[in-house]
Amino acid sequence: MVTVTVWNEFRHEQEDEDAAAVYPDGIHATLADALEGHDPVDEVQTATLDEPEHGLTEDVLEATDVLFWWGHIAHDEVEDEIVDRVQERVLEGMGLIVLHSGHFSKIFKRLMGTTCDLQWREDGATERLWVVDPGHPIVDGIDECIELPQTEMYGEPFDVPEPDRLVFTSWFEGGEVFRSGCCYQRGKGRIFYFRPGHETFPIYENEEIRRVLRNAVEWASPREGSPRTFGERE
Amino acid sequence: MVTVTVWNEFRHEQEDEDAAAVYPDGIHATLADALEGHDPVDEVQTATLDEPEHGLTEDVLEATDVLFWWGHIAHDEVEDEIVDRVQERVLEGMGLIVLHSGHFSKIFKRLMGTTCDLQWREDGATERLWVVDPGHPIVDGIDECIELPQTEMYGEPFDVPEPDRLVFTSWFEGGEVFRSGCCYQRGKGRIFYFRPGHETFPIYENEEIRRVLRNAVEWASPREGSPRTFGERE
Amino acid sequence: MVTVTVWNEFRHEQEDEDAAAVYPDGIHATLADALEGHDPVDEVQTATLDEPEHGLTEDVLEATDVLFWWGHIAHDEVEDEIVDRVQERVLEGMGLIVLHSGHFSKIFKRLMGTTCDLQWREDGATERLWVVDPGHPIVDGIDECIELPQTEMYGEPFDVPEPDRLVFTSWFEGGEVFRSGCCYQRGKGRIFYFRPGHETFPIYENEEIRRVLRNAVEWASPREGSPRTFGERE
Amino acid sequence: MVTVTVWNEFRHEQEDEDAAAVYPDGIHATLADALEGHDPVDEVQTATLDEPEHGLTEDVLEATDVLFWWGHIAHDEVEDEIVDRVQERVLEGMGLIVLHSGHFSKIFKRLMGTTCDLQWREDGATERLWVVDPGHPIVDGIDECIELPQTEMYGEPFDVPEPDRLVFTSWFEGGEVFRSGCCYQRGKGRIFYFRPGHETFPIYENEEIRRVLRNAVEWASPREGSPRTFGERE
Repeated sequence: MVTVTVWNEFRHEQEDEDAAAVYPDGIHATLADALEGHDPVDEVQTATLDEPEHGLTEDVLEATDVLFWWGHIAHDEVEDEIVDRVQERVLEGMGLIVLHSGHFSKIFKRLMGTTCDLQWREDGATERLWVVDPGHPIVDGIDECIELPQTEMYGEPFDVPEPDRLVFTSWFEGGEVFRSGCCYQRGKGRIFYFRPGHETFPIYENEEIRRVLRNAVEWASPREGSPRTFGERE
Repeated sequence: MVTVTVWNEFRHEQEDEDAAAVYPDGIHATLADALEGHDPVDEVQTATLDEPEHGLTEDVLEATDVLFWWGHIAHDEVEDEIVDRVQERVLEGMGLIVLHSGHFSKIFKRLMGTTCDLQWREDGATERLWVVDPGHPIVDGIDECIELPQTEMYGEPFDVPEPDRLVFTSWFEGGEVFRSGCCYQRGKGRIFYFRPGHETFPIYENEEIRRVLRNAVEWASPREGSPRTFGERE
Repeated sequence: MVTVTVWNEFRHEQEDEDAAAVYPDGIHATLADALEGHDPVDEVQTATLDEPEHGLTEDVLEATDVLFWWGHIAHDEVEDEIVDRVQERVLEGMGLIVLHSGHFSKIFKRLMGTTCDLQWREDGATERLWVVDPGHPIVDGIDECIELPQTEMYGEPFDVPEPDRLVFTSWFEGGEVFRSGCCYQRGKGRIFYFRPGHETFPIYENEEIRRVLRNAVEWASPREGSPRTFGERE
Repeated sequence: MVTVTVWNEFRHEQEDEDAAAVYPDGIHATLADALEGHDPVDEVQTATLDEPEHGLTEDVLEATDVLFWWGHIAHDEVEDEIVDRVQERVLEGMGLIVLHSGHFSKIFKRLMGTTCDLQWREDGATERLWVVDPGHPIVDGIDECIELPQTEMYGEPFDVPEPDRLVFTSWFEGGEVFRSGCCYQRGKGRIFYFRPGHETFPIYENEEIRRVLRNAVEWASPREGSPRTFGERE
């Protein structure tokens, strides 16, 4: 059984009416609700930027199997020491699921080694997420595409390393495409970048998106694997 | 300098008025014209299905650095012996560029190990090929996307192995996406699948598409590399 | 729960004293014994070359979640029709685990698209299989390397496509290396090539090797995934 | 034509007799000598840690097509600002060739997102670098393996992302293996990690190693590619 920690910047929902209307208790509460009580999730805890150590103490991270990350306007306020700590845990095997504007978070840029930049347009037009890897466990039970009536557009080029597996590619009504579901492994940890989730559209209420999030928890959960032994050898 | 052989099924253009109107001398002639006299191409020869050995004798293949492949309605008429011969040459280092409906050719399915199936719709709507790997030599001099006003749609899932490098992803007006520029290596040979090129739209007259084809020749040209020595070892 | 079918050529053990001494009931029996009664394996059945349809009828394959393949001196006797059938099942999601000299089987060559050739020496010297991907579920509970005191050597180059994940790399006493644990996905199916297993060394009695085989079953088991819908689209 | 900058920490050779005996003018001088006057290298410049800005001013980097990096005992003395600058240039297309103990450099760890840790033993025993990708341009003219009579051992696990292409795998007399030639792309830049090169063994005098270094320059040279346009889109 798996313990999930949902990390949220939690600023938009406190400062911006539109975001508060969609996510009154914060994006983290909605995400937690999508995961709680669903196999293989045993426990969900949340953490936010303005808590001490951003809510990501050594103890919290030690107990976390899979960490979700949502941030947007305050990436720079995340302390480097906490980023170091999260990176270390990922390399040891903790799963990390980076959502939407989290593409620009310190932790995602740290793990990717690139700018993670992209093109964008806040037009509220339709997005279709097409499954391009129908055998991947992250799409268990998902149809050939997920349609979201209103989204912010993200367009290529997306400045990330070529994904280990590309699971979703998005089509946007305005004419763009985007690699919107990207799997990586770094150290023993599995990382899933998943594009959907703007703060003023109720995307995390969508049942198919919630199904993907739960599948991603299962996929990203730590495996026992083999020891990582480094240093001088006799 | 590089010798290119353009192989074409050459049936549509002899049987179908619409195709003949667009490609009066055959698709192979238009492709040859796009390549001839352009660095790094030294010589272009063509070969078609109805020639003896489909025009792909041992001598022709031996002299070929990069082979283009266009086929559609007569894939089954290609002799297995010729497919064996082409496969062997690719593994030894010959480049192979598979175009459009060539996705269903025996040689492409042989090299991929999958069905190479996809979804399609002949609607003549707009396609945009977005560059997703801006550092790849196949997109030298290409802008962020290539727009084709009228195409046949190809949609995901595309049943091929995950590409070594994904260079283009297509957006279609009707709502689909497609991995339309896929790079593979098999043995010492480089393979590029490039989607554009329906027989009744003048896509191989498009200057950007022609630029991609020339770039692909350069990318797919054989390298010296290291010996492939197999068998019992002392 | 998972149903496994172990396919074995079963010739060496009937024709050759040394092989019969090591595997008196056939390699398939020893492999079945390694899997039976171990989570996640629910049922193990075996099939051999000389049975009708090589023991791989439509019904048997339909009921198989993961298929093991061991062959060596009679690859050519496997009917193409059965190879087609196995390939189709793999693309639909059945796992396939190809062992040792199975690198030259029709089904592995079919799925890889290459010759799958390599260098070899039957010298009975030591092999060490080093884990190069310690986060992979196939190495759950395995130490940093597995040492086998007596093996046949396989050396590079190994003419296969670059693996999706490389899990083991072998060191041989005689001076060679080999990519000895290679993961692939084709269609919805997962394929694991695992080098150990010469017919005259009791390698499938080794407890660590048996652990890897069981881990591989879990990894290769079919996932639900998303539909593979092909053809004309409205 | 290509301009190369060879960066060297240049401490061992000034502080340690054994290193000074092997590389009296510094490792950078020997590397420069291996490259100068050889196609496609047009110009070679060197830069070292103790120069202002470590010799890597904006102007120097702007003029550099491919940067070599050798460091060992003073990785921490490299200023983060210079690391930022090198990373930015790589993402824009500059090639980067990281040698031996440079695996622990700030710039390599930055681009990989992992610890880049490994096992090691300074035993002066034999290494064989086996070619596992005989079609790769980095092995042009190289035989099936390169033997180095005396080296420091590096062993797996090597904590890096799975390489885009694995070109060499090393065999060590003492019983270990290592992925010793690893290709990556980050942004538009190509990165090659190449293991050989301990400071007290004359490995950069070896003619085959020098051939690999020159091949790597050609492979890593910037391509024109396509624009990387980011930000808001109309």
